[in-house]
Amino acid sequence: VRALWLQDGALRGVSDLPAPDPAPGEALVRVLLCGICRTDLELAKGYAGFTGVPGHELVGQVVAAPSSPDWEGRRVVAEINVSCGSCRDCSAGRRPHCAQRAVLGIRGRPGAFAEYVAVPVANLHVVPDGLADDVAVFTEPAAAALEVQEQVPIGPGERVLVIGDGKLGQLLARTLALTGCELRVGGRHPDKLALLARRGIATSPPDALPERWADVAVECTGNPEGVALALRVLRPRGTLVLKSTYPGLAPVSLSAIVVDEITLVGSRCGPFPRALGLLASRRLDVSDLVSAVHPLAEGERAFAAAASPGQLKVLVRVAGA
Amino acid sequence: VRALWLQDGALRGVSDLPAPDPAPGEALVRVLLCGICRTDLELAKGYAGFTGVPGHELVGQVVAAPSSPDWEGRRVVAEINVSCGSCRDCSAGRRPHCAQRAVLGIRGRPGAFAEYVAVPVANLHVVPDGLADDVAVFTEPAAAALEVQEQVPIGPGERVLVIGDGKLGQLLARTLALTGCELRVGGRHPDKLALLARRGIATSPPDALPERWADVAVECTGNPEGVALALRVLRPRGTLVLKSTYPGLAPVSLSAIVVDEITLVGSRCGPFPRALGLLASRRLDVSDLVSAVHPLAEGERAFAAAASPGQLKVLVRVAGA
Repeated sequence: VRALWLQDGALRGVSDLPAPDPAPGEALVRVLLCGICRTDLELAKGYAGFTGVPGHELVGQVVAAPSSPDWEGRRVVAEINVSCGSCRDCSAGRRPHCAQRAVLGIRGRPGAFAEYVAVPVANLHVVPDGLADDVAVFTEPAAAALEVQEQVPIGPGERVLVIGDGKLGQLLARTLALTGCELRVGGRHPDKLALLARRGIATSPPDALPERWADVAVECTGNPEGVALALRVLRPRGTLVLKSTYPGLAPVSLSAIVVDEITLVGSRCGPFPRALGLLASRRLDVSDLVSAVHPLAEGERAFAAAASPGQLKVLVRVAGA
Repeated sequence: VRALWLQDGALRGVSDLPAPDPAPGEALVRVLLCGICRTDLELAKGYAGFTGVPGHELVGQVVAAPSSPDWEGRRVVAEINVSCGSCRDCSAGRRPHCAQRAVLGIRGRPGAFAEYVAVPVANLHVVPDGLADDVAVFTEPAAAALEVQEQVPIGPGERVLVIGDGKLGQLLARTLALTGCELRVGGRHPDKLALLARRGIATSPPDALPERWADVAVECTGNPEGVALALRVLRPRGTLVLKSTYPGLAPVSLSAIVVDEITLVGSRCGPFPRALGLLASRRLDVSDLVSAVHPLAEGERAFAAAASPGQLKVLVRVAGA
């Protein structure tokens, strides 16, 4: 099967690889569409030392599921953590944190920039019929955005700052807007901020944000400067959610966190059913977030496009539905 | 009045200063005893740019309280934050976080390494009769230790790691031991760990701590290495409490916090009544934590002693009761 290969911190082009061989309990999924996220770009620069096929934001169609034939033919999205199911973390309801886990296209398991990918049936969710591929492909990042609301209670009237107007910041802002909170997005890109302003979301350049204003800040830039900015804009005893991938060690003012008794919350994967529901009901609209769609054969070019300034989501089209 | 002076990031000896002039609502307190904490040592190296009389862990006797004569003659301890009472933070119940606040001996207000100090009556707490000065002087740091329990629910059976066996780590360990949690203290000083082992508290050298073990870790060393250690010993979705003063910017692995969905909680001042209650009932025993007592005239020598390795709490005796 054709697949994009990543090795030693760099993409190595699209080549022919042996077809995935699903283990018991797994399905073989024909990939339709797969999105590129910031973590993919970091992997392609060496983050986490991954070697293999990247890609974890997929929508596909089940072509074989020997242990669960009901799934065959269904259009699906897939949760990315493949856990052991029996360790202390799995038993305690923290399966995405299993120490033995593989993660689709990120750690120890091939991902979905490929014609086919093997995925445990337990990780699959059916895509509702009315939901187009290029919307369903946002399920994984939308779920990650919704994880913030699973971790931090956010309701009407609370002052929430999103830092970053990129693809993750857009999803954070749009999902948080549904809570009735007093939302503000700080970003550097007038055209991206305009997409939010058009939806009635307040936006500012980062240096125009008022100090000690926010009850909750969500950092979506992956830049330590975003963390420093959040600490200035948060009120004392406020909550700072880290939502991005940060390479290496970042310089942080721990004393600011102590003196202001800030709570900092790391946030990763989120609830797929909630994301699918919001996308299917169109309460979460992502129609303006796709910057480009490239065929799999242009996988490297797609990554270059995703890394270039001004882009939002870049998708890789592997097959038609 | 005689007082220790700190300026331009260095102690300037004990000298004669004008007597404090209590504002309306304030009391004049004759200082009996005042402890040196890590924040004092950092102030004496330039942290927070403080100029003035340091000292915020005091026990004293009210000599004048024109607006509240009932307080005259009482032996007291004092909360250290002096807030405006009317800003958004004060109105929201976050008086210790008032942006206009002064902090006794730390920010904008003279502290208690002096014969007399002025303190708002609202900040005073009466010391119960049976409680000796050299125990009551631990009220402020014991309250700071108890703040952790106000912020993070900790109960029987939870696995809690305290990093640091110094004076703050000792108070953290001893207050946390009262919760029934499964407690472990990591430290480098066999003699200090022995004080805890004698009380039935489990201890280890830092490198012997098991990975992914703790539900909650409390960092009490003020060293970024302690933060890195905590991130290794915490389980995913665990809570890391920062309890110390950290100078400058510290290198932190933000990705570890994101990937493991760690919650990091900054923790500062705590509940005085609870601290006084535990000290008075002797459930919290601090009798073995005083390394040395120096007279005020030897203030600089007391600081040097507090900064030297192997020491626990160093006290400055200003006057007899």
